[in-house]
Amino acid sequence: MPPSPTAVPPPSDRVRLRRKPGRGHYDRETIHAILDASPICHVGVVVDGAPIVTPTFQWREGEHVYIHGARTNRTLNVADGAEICVTVSLLDGLVLGRSAMNHSANFRSVVILGRATRIDDPEAKRARLKAFIESLYPGRWDTLRPITDTELKATAILSLPLDEASAKLREGGPMDDEADYALPIWAGVLPVRMTPGTPEPDPRNLADVSVPDHVTGFRIG
Amino acid sequence: MPPSPTAVPPPSDRVRLRRKPGRGHYDRETIHAILDASPICHVGVVVDGAPIVTPTFQWREGEHVYIHGARTNRTLNVADGAEICVTVSLLDGLVLGRSAMNHSANFRSVVILGRATRIDDPEAKRARLKAFIESLYPGRWDTLRPITDTELKATAILSLPLDEASAKLREGGPMDDEADYALPIWAGVLPVRMTPGTPEPDPRNLADVSVPDHVTGFRIG
Repeated sequence: MPPSPTAVPPPSDRVRLRRKPGRGHYDRETIHAILDASPICHVGVVVDGAPIVTPTFQWREGEHVYIHGARTNRTLNVADGAEICVTVSLLDGLVLGRSAMNHSANFRSVVILGRATRIDDPEAKRARLKAFIESLYPGRWDTLRPITDTELKATAILSLPLDEASAKLREGGPMDDEADYALPIWAGVLPVRMTPGTPEPDPRNLADVSVPDHVTGFRIG
Repeated sequence: MPPSPTAVPPPSDRVRLRRKPGRGHYDRETIHAILDASPICHVGVVVDGAPIVTPTFQWREGEHVYIHGARTNRTLNVADGAEICVTVSLLDGLVLGRSAMNHSANFRSVVILGRATRIDDPEAKRARLKAFIESLYPGRWDTLRPITDTELKATAILSLPLDEASAKLREGGPMDDEADYALPIWAGVLPVRMTPGTPEPDPRNLADVSVPDHVTGFRIG
């Protein structure tokens, strides 16, 4: 039997969900979709034996995610060549049950573990940064003042393969204890999502420049 | 001279911002306000030398934050007595400059480092869980089916002091290279925020139960 197109390595013990295995997903489609739904991630590194968690942006190309920052960025320097964790999470709703215990949250999250590798080749860095800008703002890269060699040198980009990753998600309403359904308590889900507001143009924009589609059409989640 | 009410210990080297010190804040008001603005946090622990970052909820009472979960929760068990990192971050806006380099994000974040302590006393646990529910949904705790001793035993709560914490924030528009302001490129800020949608009542709610104010008035951010 040919392998399924979604076949992935069996999850490692580190990323396999143990307590609520039904919430765990390891197929590429689910993992990709969550990573592509939110640029925000939290990067974990270890410094002198202690964990440090820093928010930053991530983007995905194929079977890798990338993070970037200033060449002097402390987290990126610690992460270079080290085992790191990149976690992406989206809160989709608050779940209110009829007891404190049965409150929960609807969410989608991905945890990626592995060793980060710095990208040194300038053309590879340029291509990755273009992919990042385009993932957030389709069509914007070619409208920008081109990136300079100095800017490329000042930017560090780290790559992390999706070899060891798991997704976790919860959806649906509260699961209450049977006896509690008789109680006069409002239960349900309050959906939440990240929504864009009204674009705030820079006061120094030229007079004839209008808001581009990649701003008015921006979505997270 | 009496100490200022906002006096805090000088930031440790681990939490002090070095690269962009102007974005760093160490006063209690700023740190409290960010923690209180979002229940979502990312907890970092170290397992076999590698970092693991897990999304969960946090709440603050005084100079401590708390996280909770099932007594069998892997992250909480690793965190109990260990050095952990709790990071809260809010994305406030996307900053679009006239070059790739001058794109950024407006955000507020807090990083807390320290050793987590498990709360064992049942009455203390009950009080902490009440504070958590009330922080999310004011007035809800007393309307719920009371928490049982078994539920309390099945729940682990960890406490982390705010002794070693820093806040970081960026606000305002893009800071472009002077020559780039002459270019016909839309620059500015796209504000984003977490917004609640329409509450979805559980199909088994009793007929005369209406949506409470703590649901219709819910806010994050």
